[in-house]
Amino acid sequence: MAGKREEKRDDLRQRLLDATEARIVAQGLTGLRAREIAQDAGCALGAIYTVFADLDDLILHVGARTLQRLGQALSSAVAEKSDPEGVLQALAAAYLDFALTHRKAWEALFDHNPPEIPDWLREQQGVLIAEIIRPLQALLPDADEKLIRARARTMFAAVHGVIDLSLEGRFASVGEADLRRELQALVGTLVRGAQA
Amino acid sequence: MAGKREEKRDDLRQRLLDATEARIVAQGLTGLRAREIAQDAGCALGAIYTVFADLDDLILHVGARTLQRLGQALSSAVAEKSDPEGVLQALAAAYLDFALTHRKAWEALFDHNPPEIPDWLREQQGVLIAEIIRPLQALLPDADEKLIRARARTMFAAVHGVIDLSLEGRFASVGEADLRRELQALVGTLVRGAQA
Repeated sequence: MAGKREEKRDDLRQRLLDATEARIVAQGLTGLRAREIAQDAGCALGAIYTVFADLDDLILHVGARTLQRLGQALSSAVAEKSDPEGVLQALAAAYLDFALTHRKAWEALFDHNPPEIPDWLREQQGVLIAEIIRPLQALLPDADEKLIRARARTMFAAVHGVIDLSLEGRFASVGEADLRRELQALVGTLVRGAQA
Repeated sequence: MAGKREEKRDDLRQRLLDATEARIVAQGLTGLRAREIAQDAGCALGAIYTVFADLDDLILHVGARTLQRLGQALSSAVAEKSDPEGVLQALAAAYLDFALTHRKAWEALFDHNPPEIPDWLREQQGVLIAEIIRPLQALLPDADEKLIRARARTMFAAVHGVIDLSLEGRFASVGEADLRRELQALVGTLVRGAQA
């Protein structure tokens, strides 16, 4: 009996995540309503709160799915590379590809502003820098682990900033071909600078 | 008569800009209402639309003020510098200082999402990269003007990304002292990379 109840809960959970994700992909976070999500998932409004704390919690769990897919995309991108610059260039290009193909889900990751980011999600955000660590260790052999992690966050944030402002099309915006060239130049310059 | 009417219009305009700016500084863009702005400015709701097209237009003009102040801060920061790295380091530090001291107004610049950015504001956004051009020309003597402008936008977006993600405190976030060190390292690495 308990197993079956657990199964039903899991099923409801998946349906709610699917419904929320589909709405985010279609319309972004703006105007996302619990009532409509419940309708899409074929459950009562109140049922949401038997498996998620609130709408923010539900959106955070959709974010976790996005991060997981992004992590897989980044890992695949570097699977056959080993030289630091090759790895870092592949990561930046894969991050741009992910942002372009999962635009709304990717934007939602950064636009969602819940009162608090739970620890489990912070941990999962580690996929954003996980693959940057190894090539940076090769480039900065004298840096300790804490500094390497800080540099990895900085490199991620720099690449993210260039992509984010450009895709928003408002500040410092360039076309996609120029954006690819600029990303490549940024990563190349950072690598040469680290080696210098 | 016409002069006096013009004067009154200008006065109303300034009061509306002041009132909107004060609200943005206090609460950010969220929940900004034309009715409350009119109240603060001591005019009727409809009076707003005699001097601004709509609330977005009013917010864009507050953004123009913010950009002007930011442009002045960046120009002052480099007034006594001439070596490319000194200029670029001073700009990144001044940009961080501005973001920290004008936090809400600075956030509003990037969070405001009107249907369209008018050309006059795009032109004014040039202050974000204006001071980066000269040191980049010195670092990249063979690059043409178009490429220099693209590299300047990229450098701005990279620095902005590092500051933005860190101040948001959610992704890739570090404390203020670490943030200053990371910004300095980013700019230094980019300069050495460009020279290499």
